[in-house]
Amino acid sequence: MFYHVKELQYHAKPECPDPVFARKLQEILGGQFGEISVALQYLFQGWNTRGDGKYRDMLMDIGTEELAHIEMLATMIARLLDGAPDVELDEAAKNPIVAAILGGSNPQHTIVSGLGAMPADSNGNRWTADYIIASGNLLADFRANLNAESQGRLQAVRLYEQTDDRGVKDMLSWLIARDTMHQNQWYAACLELEAKENIVVPSTFPRELEKQEVAYTFYNNSAGTKSAKGRWAYGPSIDGLGQFNYFENPVPFGDKPKLNPAPPYIHDTPP
Amino acid sequence: MFYHVKELQYHAKPECPDPVFARKLQEILGGQFGEISVALQYLFQGWNTRGDGKYRDMLMDIGTEELAHIEMLATMIARLLDGAPDVELDEAAKNPIVAAILGGSNPQHTIVSGLGAMPADSNGNRWTADYIIASGNLLADFRANLNAESQGRLQAVRLYEQTDDRGVKDMLSWLIARDTMHQNQWYAACLELEAKENIVVPSTFPRELEKQEVAYTFYNNSAGTKSAKGRWAYGPSIDGLGQFNYFENPVPFGDKPKLNPAPPYIHDTPP
Amino acid sequence: MFYHVKELQYHAKPECPDPVFARKLQEILGGQFGEISVALQYLFQGWNTRGDGKYRDMLMDIGTEELAHIEMLATMIARLLDGAPDVELDEAAKNPIVAAILGGSNPQHTIVSGLGAMPADSNGNRWTADYIIASGNLLADFRANLNAESQGRLQAVRLYEQTDDRGVKDMLSWLIARDTMHQNQWYAACLELEAKENIVVPSTFPRELEKQEVAYTFYNNSAGTKSAKGRWAYGPSIDGLGQFNYFENPVPFGDKPKLNPAPPYIHDTPP
Amino acid sequence: MFYHVKELQYHAKPECPDPVFARKLQEILGGQFGEISVALQYLFQGWNTRGDGKYRDMLMDIGTEELAHIEMLATMIARLLDGAPDVELDEAAKNPIVAAILGGSNPQHTIVSGLGAMPADSNGNRWTADYIIASGNLLADFRANLNAESQGRLQAVRLYEQTDDRGVKDMLSWLIARDTMHQNQWYAACLELEAKENIVVPSTFPRELEKQEVAYTFYNNSAGTKSAKGRWAYGPSIDGLGQFNYFENPVPFGDKPKLNPAPPYIHDTPP
Amino acid sequence: MFYHVKELQYHAKPECPDPVFARKLQEILGGQFGEISVALQYLFQGWNTRGDGKYRDMLMDIGTEELAHIEMLATMIARLLDGAPDVELDEAAKNPIVAAILGGSNPQHTIVSGLGAMPADSNGNRWTADYIIASGNLLADFRANLNAESQGRLQAVRLYEQTDDRGVKDMLSWLIARDTMHQNQWYAACLELEAKENIVVPSTFPRELEKQEVAYTFYNNSAGTKSAKGRWAYGPSIDGLGQFNYFENPVPFGDKPKLNPAPPYIHDTPP
Amino acid sequence: MFYHVKELQYHAKPECPDPVFARKLQEILGGQFGEISVALQYLFQGWNTRGDGKYRDMLMDIGTEELAHIEMLATMIARLLDGAPDVELDEAAKNPIVAAILGGSNPQHTIVSGLGAMPADSNGNRWTADYIIASGNLLADFRANLNAESQGRLQAVRLYEQTDDRGVKDMLSWLIARDTMHQNQWYAACLELEAKENIVVPSTFPRELEKQEVAYTFYNNSAGTKSAKGRWAYGPSIDGLGQFNYFENPVPFGDKPKLNPAPPYIHDTPP
Ligand SMILES: [Ca+2]
Ligand SMILES: [Ca+2]
Ligand SMILES: [Ca+2]
Ligand SMILES: [Ca+2]
Ligand SMILES: [Ca+2]
Ligand SMILES: [Ca+2]
Repeated sequence: MFYHVKELQYHAKPECPDPVFARKLQEILGGQFGEISVALQYLFQGWNTRGDGKYRDMLMDIGTEELAHIEMLATMIARLLDGAPDVELDEAAKNPIVAAILGGSNPQHTIVSGLGAMPADSNGNRWTADYIIASGNLLADFRANLNAESQGRLQAVRLYEQTDDRGVKDMLSWLIARDTMHQNQWYAACLELEAKENIVVPSTFPRELEKQEVAYTFYNNSAGTKSAKGRWAYGPSIDGLGQFNYFENPVPFGDKPKLNPAPPYIHDTPP
Repeated sequence: MFYHVKELQYHAKPECPDPVFARKLQEILGGQFGEISVALQYLFQGWNTRGDGKYRDMLMDIGTEELAHIEMLATMIARLLDGAPDVELDEAAKNPIVAAILGGSNPQHTIVSGLGAMPADSNGNRWTADYIIASGNLLADFRANLNAESQGRLQAVRLYEQTDDRGVKDMLSWLIARDTMHQNQWYAACLELEAKENIVVPSTFPRELEKQEVAYTFYNNSAGTKSAKGRWAYGPSIDGLGQFNYFENPVPFGDKPKLNPAPPYIHDTPP
Repeated sequence: MFYHVKELQYHAKPECPDPVFARKLQEILGGQFGEISVALQYLFQGWNTRGDGKYRDMLMDIGTEELAHIEMLATMIARLLDGAPDVELDEAAKNPIVAAILGGSNPQHTIVSGLGAMPADSNGNRWTADYIIASGNLLADFRANLNAESQGRLQAVRLYEQTDDRGVKDMLSWLIARDTMHQNQWYAACLELEAKENIVVPSTFPRELEKQEVAYTFYNNSAGTKSAKGRWAYGPSIDGLGQFNYFENPVPFGDKPKLNPAPPYIHDTPP
Repeated sequence: MFYHVKELQYHAKPECPDPVFARKLQEILGGQFGEISVALQYLFQGWNTRGDGKYRDMLMDIGTEELAHIEMLATMIARLLDGAPDVELDEAAKNPIVAAILGGSNPQHTIVSGLGAMPADSNGNRWTADYIIASGNLLADFRANLNAESQGRLQAVRLYEQTDDRGVKDMLSWLIARDTMHQNQWYAACLELEAKENIVVPSTFPRELEKQEVAYTFYNNSAGTKSAKGRWAYGPSIDGLGQFNYFENPVPFGDKPKLNPAPPYIHDTPP
Repeated sequence: MFYHVKELQYHAKPECPDPVFARKLQEILGGQFGEISVALQYLFQGWNTRGDGKYRDMLMDIGTEELAHIEMLATMIARLLDGAPDVELDEAAKNPIVAAILGGSNPQHTIVSGLGAMPADSNGNRWTADYIIASGNLLADFRANLNAESQGRLQAVRLYEQTDDRGVKDMLSWLIARDTMHQNQWYAACLELEAKENIVVPSTFPRELEKQEVAYTFYNNSAGTKSAKGRWAYGPSIDGLGQFNYFENPVPFGDKPKLNPAPPYIHDTPP
Repeated sequence: MFYHVKELQYHAKPECPDPVFARKLQEILGGQFGEISVALQYLFQGWNTRGDGKYRDMLMDIGTEELAHIEMLATMIARLLDGAPDVELDEAAKNPIVAAILGGSNPQHTIVSGLGAMPADSNGNRWTADYIIASGNLLADFRANLNAESQGRLQAVRLYEQTDDRGVKDMLSWLIARDTMHQNQWYAACLELEAKENIVVPSTFPRELEKQEVAYTFYNNSAGTKSAKGRWAYGPSIDGLGQFNYFENPVPFGDKPKLNPAPPYIHDTPP
């Protein structure tokens, strides 16, 4: 169960309205790696955790924090939209700023949300749960989380570069720092589980059931052998159970498939 | 540019048709972590790579291999659908297998695809590029890839448990082994880049610009302190640049937000 | 069965082409609360009505009218796109109007639809039936309709404010008036049904089967008690069957959940 | 900012696992009118509220409560999936329950989520923010909310009818009672705003700007005049500003549209 | 503008309810090539037609007819759902028909639509305007239409094979016949336009601007030369302007791409 | 199984970067009729082909070629994004080109993809498999393919008109020529199959089972009889099996539908 306090986790006040940047900032609110994604991803992983209480607790801690980040971004976006001008095409002839706003802002911020933040990305695509994952296997999911925080921090940094507003930069410097912590955190959690299990997910599948002769082979399917210089192409495998090897000229191991004709009631092309 | 040979990378022939399993197998063809996802994810990362030729080559190698996995699964699914019976509800009264097929198979396999595989998951959701990522930052993306191969192998293993068909199990044992290699591979590639850069993505953002005082703090936002027992809660941070610390009772640092009224031409609720 | 006449329900002729406004106008054609949404929502409700013929007839009347509104908007958008200039980036250097058009118009209006209206919103998101509802319970659905006409009129009014074109304003003044009628109409229909049933949907569920002790309680889950001043926090409930009461400090009534471990064939994190 | 406690708002424990009902219950977790929808809808409305603090507080109260409902349903679904059998097609021949489970359960509950709840509906469609609305106009939005609670209670009641499990019914009786409160609450809030403004949203648009002669007319676009018997067809309008009137034979007021040919660089069909 | 009469274009009455077939029939109502798709596709093409009035009239004729097909299918589905049993898992143990219904029906037909038809396909995917096209070039679009009627008739025929209900078969025999007409119609319309223009769309692009040396070449990119036996591999081209030729061993004409490094503010992988 | 060579099928090098055109070019990479669509459509059709090896081989040839077109466009887009300026709103006041770029470019090209191409269209909608079709009936599918190449060439031509960059025009002239070939090819393949079967898909359904009296009738559902002048309204039908006839005043053949009330456990509106 949840409780809310009205104070923000951190300040979210721009120096000036800027509807063009408001549109861009939507990316880290409602985009693929925005705060809605991480909040719901961590909470679903937490609710579904069947194992160690330590991980469930940790997932609920961070999922709950991410809800506060959604709130900060929603507040910032609403303020960047403050007094968004009521622009028309003829005015653009006189004023290039108007032209920029006409083009660079999200028309739904005036037509649909009434100067409010939207659960959408910087192109106005509504958020979808296709973005998130909770598999029941925590090592798999912590890797998803490490990725999410890496993509998320990268996007926040790119946005930091695209504004001069000190209020916006201040808030982003908070979110970027939290992403530093969260990358460290998921990395630490992965190391813990890898030490107990193995780096290969799921660790519980008997290795003799997989086709072991191809479990450490790199196939050079694109002409040129620069890929042979990577660590994945030689030496012991990272899981410690094999030796990487490099196949310069990969060949097929299967046959040419030939499918049976469909029964008549399917009305495929007649044979 | 690509070339195709008719032979499959590995065999894809079931012992018997089974339309219910055909539906399930769609998950690793056209689902969130199916072969379409990894193929297009790696290829887009490769095409967009601006840096080291070694990584571009490697991405094209593996992306091209994944196209062969799409092909194997499409072939297997078409064969599992061979002679899918033309079932009606009254027959279910006499035969529970018919009941199971009526319910457990995908009706679009007969109505839409004519006993062919579809670019969709096990619930018939069509594949979407919302599933994939190519950010231009390879460490971020290799983490996405490590996650994809972890989720993908987990799903393949779960499917392996749900069938007795030796032909299907044989093909899955190939794909599972390749996922073992690919997890090792992305792990190795991450280690290479982390050694050159740092574990925090992007490594190029000056740390003094982030709010450093919260860059290694764990906030206990969900009551209970089991999360204090994790490696993320104490000791040196994984990036080697800080010390983890645990905030048992996190407080807000921001104010209660109060938004300005909207201008009249927006027609929000009148103040 | 339907018949069509070529005349529009009302005029749809702008004074001048304006590709930027054409893009914006898409919102009330193919957006969440655009005319496609209300047309199909009312028609599906009508086709599915199992009860009183009066409501079925009325739903078909208004659903059929909304088809005419789709037609008016499609026509207006095509005319706003008339002679959309063939703009290139270099020309923007000389002419801010060109810059505004480059940015503010929908590129698919030239590339995809050939200067025609699209079944999409002002950000180019294609219309989806996720927007609509027909539940078989008319009181529930008439509330959905009252909402749709409220959101729709709000958006039309906001668009009215964003243009000076007298032709566009004339057409919008028609649509806005029809939305006035439709809000009145759904409100009247709700009152009729509420008088016969009760305000709580569905009225047919025996009240003794719900957890009656919490059926009129307001929980103050966000710190601060301003919400205690609303009519929902005290006095008789609107359905006339209870008394509102306000819980200042809500507590959980359930336990801490603890989930059983998954069976081994699921390959979740090992316990 | 948010805080979480581990206890559930109310109990969520079934008597027995039932993977088929787990699938169905997903509807009110991740469907169009599930708990994710109401939680995020109310929170976004709260964050975007520019007006009266009473409404903002109330929206945050109820949005925060809905997060607890997501949690209860996620927990219940995970428990209904407990020990979901590892079913295969041959077993269906012997056991109709197996047949029912094969068909009636969601294959992603075993393959993708590892016996966990998913952010998806009863057909496995992932949740999308297309379902929600926050317009900045609270009367419009409270109508959206009244509709959401009406649809949501209706679905919960239908699910209540489809199970005999006393644990599930107990939890549903809680959610149904809360929906009773929430319908009462949104109704009360609408009455408050309607008393201050007018029933027509937005109330701030000058009525003389709309085409007043058609603002209270019902058009009989579907043959048959049963719709003339409804309250919307005669008498004073609900907004108190006009008289309803009924047009038995509606005619078009506009012309036959004729579009100009496209410029040659568009390559539409040559005239 | 549209008018509606209550009578159906043709009968839509099943002999018996059958919720499993109701689910399947959704495919041709709300699927990719269902009646919603063709209705809206033809209407949008009609509204956007800038050229010959004959085509606009014809598009409005057939688009309006398709609305009647939506209506017939919606009616049939509601009747197939009549009295859909209120099934539970335990009953499946006793009755395989119950098992089949539990699995083979769409749970949203009871939970969401209250025994009504939905704007969705046989897997419960909601209809989306991604399915339709109106490009402004009528020859292109008439080919889209010919395809839609081909896919649509194929699906209707497959459904015809999957039922014994004489009422359903009677209605399908109507729809199948109309699809026969519509395939003939679009074929005729294509021939008319091809005779005036050329078979290559758009016919208005000067041929000397395309890379003419590869405009009639077939590339054998998949090993094996069976494709050389097709009419596309030799002889005069269908457009009458060239000679087909077959390249057995296609080679690349471009260079190996090498992308410039990104500027530092993008934070891609450091070079 | 596939192989890749690093060289492009044809050159993909612009004269100058142009982020606005990069956004537009996304349409034919990741839009409804972009190269991802045709590649996956042809490959799935090929993998699912149960009939003549000639068609399977041909489909694999062209599907494999389309992968090379994805690659060319991805490369071109990355180069058009080279050194995309780091623009801010204040700069727009001084420089209309900046205004145009702010509005006309895709913000995700800097925030999300790091100056890389995306699997999305010109409005940033991610690619979806809703765009493609593989039905098992090759005549139906070849018509889908003929449409896809018609729409695709039309879009490429429109883009050709919107740029002056000689590098971009050169690449487009290649793609346009290939689309010329592909339209010819699918047309030839259709003629082959039509000669063997009949123009009506599927040809295998016995004509006496369809309602033959309406199989060649044109219904004039939209007032006005211009449509009577088309070839579809008189003379022998294209399939050679009937005579077209024109119904000037179409009437319904069915009854007014009246649906039974729902059972009480559905809680529809009480009768
Ligand atoms: Ca965050
Ligand atoms: Ca793979
Ligand atoms: Ca309307
Ligand atoms: Ca609730
Ligand atoms: Ca039809
Ligand atoms: Ca191509």
